[in-house]
Amino acid sequence: MNFEHLRALSAVVDEGTFEAAADRLHISPSAVSQRIKALERSVGQVVVRRAVPCTPTDAGTILLRMARQVELLEGEARFALSGDTSLRTTTPVAVNADSLATWFVPVLSDAAGWPDSTLNLHVEDQDHSARLLRQGDVIGAVTADPAPVNGCRVEALGAMRYLPVAAPGLHRRFTKDDGVDWAAMPVVQFNAKDDLQRRFLQARGADGLPPRHTVPSSEAFLAAVRAGLGWGMLPELQLGTDLDDGTLVLLDAGAYRDVVLYWQAWKLDSERLHRIGDAVRRAGRQLR
Amino acid sequence: MNFEHLRALSAVVDEGTFEAAADRLHISPSAVSQRIKALERSVGQVVVRRAVPCTPTDAGTILLRMARQVELLEGEARFALSGDTSLRTTTPVAVNADSLATWFVPVLSDAAGWPDSTLNLHVEDQDHSARLLRQGDVIGAVTADPAPVNGCRVEALGAMRYLPVAAPGLHRRFTKDDGVDWAAMPVVQFNAKDDLQRRFLQARGADGLPPRHTVPSSEAFLAAVRAGLGWGMLPELQLGTDLDDGTLVLLDAGAYRDVVLYWQAWKLDSERLHRIGDAVRRAGRQLR
Repeated sequence: MNFEHLRALSAVVDEGTFEAAADRLHISPSAVSQRIKALERSVGQVVVRRAVPCTPTDAGTILLRMARQVELLEGEARFALSGDTSLRTTTPVAVNADSLATWFVPVLSDAAGWPDSTLNLHVEDQDHSARLLRQGDVIGAVTADPAPVNGCRVEALGAMRYLPVAAPGLHRRFTKDDGVDWAAMPVVQFNAKDDLQRRFLQARGADGLPPRHTVPSSEAFLAAVRAGLGWGMLPELQLGTDLDDGTLVLLDAGAYRDVVLYWQAWKLDSERLHRIGDAVRRAGRQLR
Repeated sequence: MNFEHLRALSAVVDEGTFEAAADRLHISPSAVSQRIKALERSVGQVVVRRAVPCTPTDAGTILLRMARQVELLEGEARFALSGDTSLRTTTPVAVNADSLATWFVPVLSDAAGWPDSTLNLHVEDQDHSARLLRQGDVIGAVTADPAPVNGCRVEALGAMRYLPVAAPGLHRRFTKDDGVDWAAMPVVQFNAKDDLQRRFLQARGADGLPPRHTVPSSEAFLAAVRAGLGWGMLPELQLGTDLDDGTLVLLDAGAYRDVVLYWQAWKLDSERLHRIGDAVRRAGRQLR
């Protein structure tokens, strides 16, 4: 196993084909193939599924993370030796959509001041984040999942509070003498996995009945609720002055829901990793 | 082939397993299995790959679209017969992220006034939109791809104009006596497929050289450019007063890029399909 073999693996998985990996590494496709075969001989297992696109096998996934970690350490060492800012390496991080739409934004400003690294964000829910961490595609992830991925450190950042809100017109239209008609008032959900609204309704015995719209973008979700498409559970941090100026009404002050967010990151003594962790923690002070 | 068999296919693909499909249809898993087998007998081909999740075969994809079309027509007929708004069916539509962040928002307000249908948005780039249209997961798509999907009608909506912009601090830092140092000024890209920035640089002979950050959310992309993380090609419609009040500077007034957007939708005489098409066209008047 050597650096060149690991780099070939990482390029094949990133680019999807041996040809594209060859382009990236400025070598021939057959040289890529030889390196992958040499890696497979040295570990005695197949590491890449030859398909379109190429994907890592289970053994390949373990090596892939090692390859990413070696690349990170190598990039840092090169930068420390030369001080040459053209040697920037990338800081790949996963973050959930609601965080990126709210408290995560200061991390972008922090990253603007880093001379030796670019930020590469993946917007993913927790199922994907775990996979990305496992195969080394990201070095850290903001996730609602506290279960540590093998080889990662987990810490709680704080809670994101979600409030049940609606446009005043919609609220009026579905309020009768005995209160809100939960079984009839339309709901907006982020996607099929978003169960914040469903849980709220379950507690009121109106599970699954009302019409449901799906709007899979944090900002468009807010726009949809403002437009009266349906009610929804929205992050307190995203509401700004909407509740104060009457753009939105709070449907039930007691029925908020706190989602605890965690920072999961590689256990690796890397300056870049410490720095992104610090930036995330600082921005995370906006959480409860 | 009958309605129940098609509904079973559509439920299996939506839910991913025979068990979940059975839950949705309020029948037993073995009844789901019998319906799928009956469908396969009647067309003489396998329609579902039994995996986790279940996926349609090529033959299944054709039947799946037919199933969705039948469901749409059936839903409309039922609503027309009864006027019962609890019989809402869904209007699944694909839209690209930049459109949803800008001109598409009035469609959400329009949809708030539809008594018989919920909106189910998919945020996808054009590669995915074509697949979603083909297998009937969406009835229409806003896409930059003019190539018609089989069975779909295509019309141009107008062009989205992208402008090269940066935060003033970043612009100053990378401007020397002979102009902007394109090879050094960091870039923000939406994802690996986003080539708007690369094309701009190619025209200046600085292709691929500058550090690249990746921020795959339209709103966070704007936040990143405002924060000075890098420059980027941003939709004119998204900039608001940023250029007037100096939050952002225009890097080159002549180097805008117009991306023509199309509305692709099933060729089907459906009221719901006409209505979403009308709403999209109306909102699309904001385009050039």
